[in-house]
Amino acid sequence: MRIELICTGDEVLTGKIVNSNFSYMSQKLEDAGLDVVWGTTVGDDRESLLQAFRLAAGRADAVIVNGGLGPTVDDLSQEIAAQAAGCELVLSEEWLARMEAFFQRRSRVMPSNNRKQAMLPASAEIIDNPIGTACGFALDIGRARFFFTPGVPRELKRMLEEQVIPRLLARSGLQSTIHLKRFHSYGLGESHVDALLAGVETLVSDGGVKLGFRAHYPQLETKLTVRGRDLDDVRAKLAPVEAEVRKRLGNFILAEDDQTLEGVVLAELASRQATLSVVESFTGGQIAARVAHLPGAEKAFRRGIVARDLSEIAAAVGLDATPTEITRETAEAVAQAARRTTGATHVLSALVNLDDGPDRIEFGGTICLAIATEADVASRRSRVVGGREWVRLGAIEMALDCLRRYLQGLPVVERIDFEKT
Amino acid sequence: MRIELICTGDEVLTGKIVNSNFSYMSQKLEDAGLDVVWGTTVGDDRESLLQAFRLAAGRADAVIVNGGLGPTVDDLSQEIAAQAAGCELVLSEEWLARMEAFFQRRSRVMPSNNRKQAMLPASAEIIDNPIGTACGFALDIGRARFFFTPGVPRELKRMLEEQVIPRLLARSGLQSTIHLKRFHSYGLGESHVDALLAGVETLVSDGGVKLGFRAHYPQLETKLTVRGRDLDDVRAKLAPVEAEVRKRLGNFILAEDDQTLEGVVLAELASRQATLSVVESFTGGQIAARVAHLPGAEKAFRRGIVARDLSEIAAAVGLDATPTEITRETAEAVAQAARRTTGATHVLSALVNLDDGPDRIEFGGTICLAIATEADVASRRSRVVGGREWVRLGAIEMALDCLRRYLQGLPVVERIDFEKT
Repeated sequence: MRIELICTGDEVLTGKIVNSNFSYMSQKLEDAGLDVVWGTTVGDDRESLLQAFRLAAGRADAVIVNGGLGPTVDDLSQEIAAQAAGCELVLSEEWLARMEAFFQRRSRVMPSNNRKQAMLPASAEIIDNPIGTACGFALDIGRARFFFTPGVPRELKRMLEEQVIPRLLARSGLQSTIHLKRFHSYGLGESHVDALLAGVETLVSDGGVKLGFRAHYPQLETKLTVRGRDLDDVRAKLAPVEAEVRKRLGNFILAEDDQTLEGVVLAELASRQATLSVVESFTGGQIAARVAHLPGAEKAFRRGIVARDLSEIAAAVGLDATPTEITRETAEAVAQAARRTTGATHVLSALVNLDDGPDRIEFGGTICLAIATEADVASRRSRVVGGREWVRLGAIEMALDCLRRYLQGLPVVERIDFEKT
Repeated sequence: MRIELICTGDEVLTGKIVNSNFSYMSQKLEDAGLDVVWGTTVGDDRESLLQAFRLAAGRADAVIVNGGLGPTVDDLSQEIAAQAAGCELVLSEEWLARMEAFFQRRSRVMPSNNRKQAMLPASAEIIDNPIGTACGFALDIGRARFFFTPGVPRELKRMLEEQVIPRLLARSGLQSTIHLKRFHSYGLGESHVDALLAGVETLVSDGGVKLGFRAHYPQLETKLTVRGRDLDDVRAKLAPVEAEVRKRLGNFILAEDDQTLEGVVLAELASRQATLSVVESFTGGQIAARVAHLPGAEKAFRRGIVARDLSEIAAAVGLDATPTEITRETAEAVAQAARRTTGATHVLSALVNLDDGPDRIEFGGTICLAIATEADVASRRSRVVGGREWVRLGAIEMALDCLRRYLQGLPVVERIDFEKT
């Protein structure tokens, strides 16, 4: 099935906002086994919209139009949809009643210009928007089925996932169940993981499992899209592949599905009623900031200490003598001292010795990490090169991932692709 | 002049990467007084590329194509450009020599597949890429001039700004000088600023100044695009409008052009050889993290202290008694104690009393900020509502902006649009 996306609106066309709705839709469709083949972006302009609708109607089987369903004069999607389909705009009493109830629940009177949102092409099928006043709808233009969706991301998300994708799957004959399994890792590059996972798809003979990646440094997301007759079939297909991915990526898998690295760390701490203090230098508070604001962190997060100067760090954690340089031993001594000072069960210290001079692609930093508990201390040294921001992001992720490894009883030191030595 | 953008590549089409090149190009062109009227996104697919080029060639005066100039088999832009223009691909000895020198400077031998990047349509004009091996080029297809640019953002940026935009301005007859003046503010919403600035464009009678906005909560960017005969003319036109914007937005302007809020704060501290410590709760280290990693912060940033618990904060800053609740007075006492403990000339404390219960749109927090110096203490209380993340981002920005105001001798307390009381 040939699917096209049309994104509308002056704000998107002029780049005033980055068009993340496009990538969101395209990814969601891919995850459901549906491929987008063409994208069009036009402004709030009658002639452009009509032309875009007509071109897509002549090429595609299905078209998703995003935006232009609002109450203001520059929202033109219903009007141009009716024109392209060759039908009238008529008032939907059904949607009008829905909107009036929507405002009533919020103890507000519906402004008169919202009435426009209930004007739909005569041939349109209403597509529900349970959380907004923009009415989704579908209709045929030319040979294609058009789906009109709101520009507000959370309304689009609900409508795409609950309403549009099931209709597309039904039309495509792919009435199978689709499941997306995701693994998040840190430390291995995309091509490395691709090589490590060579052949995992073929563990299922019918091609029902597809492997994909999404890199967002420092993390990499590995995706398995599984298609089956029903949920049991999907589970049966996923099980051996999933187990194989876990085996091959091993300790590098830091979280799965909707989990995050910081969420996993917090859950590990909470499960043993542990508390955490963090000592940082160049990372400037960003390691603490990943964890400390999370719901539940008010119990587990004890204290964060930030300083750029080693003597200031020594003073803050109560070390008698200031270490002369940043080493693994320094990171260990700082973590142990901070444990005594703050009384946390676990302390993570992350000290970075930055290169001198201006930022450049060869700019690097030596990262010394330590994790201290009452009985134990673990540490790691790593050199990362690639510019100031690359070092900063790498140090934050490495620190949190080492803590995750420690809490999960895995080796803290394991060679990663992003380090020089 | 009718300008279209064509973004190519499977990674963009499938949403694997968000297409920020599109918004970047569109904004840059708008800043130069050039409007984009249509955007197309297609994958690395011969038929789609050819169709996209032909459709744009029939509609536009100028087309910028992004991506597909790399050395691998799925990079198809030169090949399809030649096909659409009806000419041969020929080896550019000029570009081949440039590439060989490029690799030589890096002490590497040019891989053989890079030779493909020097194969250009016979009618192409080379467009220089001083920082990469992808050769930009321009040629006519149909009635439109096509500009082919690399997908790597920093290469695109150089080529668009230095090569493509001047050519577009020359073709459009807009051979005037364009200047973009930007103001960054915090605390006033876009529609409020729009109303405050009503009529500023008309201070210049010839329509040479255009007002625009770009909102990225919590900050708002106000843009003046000025067009003139030459730099003197631009300066003369900008001066009265710029002065009027500064007057009307006043204390809310936190930075201009490439400056950032954290950069302004750091510069103010450095100019008086002052030092800063920061004490935070729910913001979790993010206030410190905005400042502490900057070049130059190793001198000015003294210490950051993070804790979610008020008694832990009291212990960390050396307060004798733990305050019973978060108030302005508590924030002041914490800042003053931290000043004594850390010896910084300036301390910013930012404490947030969060609502109970799960995250929701009505979820809010009461933010209490204080700034202490040896001689003085200033503070501010504010209630922000709009969900957990909205409160977190608002508290970070408000804290840094209050510090900026304090350092600049402006009132720390001034009503903003984002607060409830």
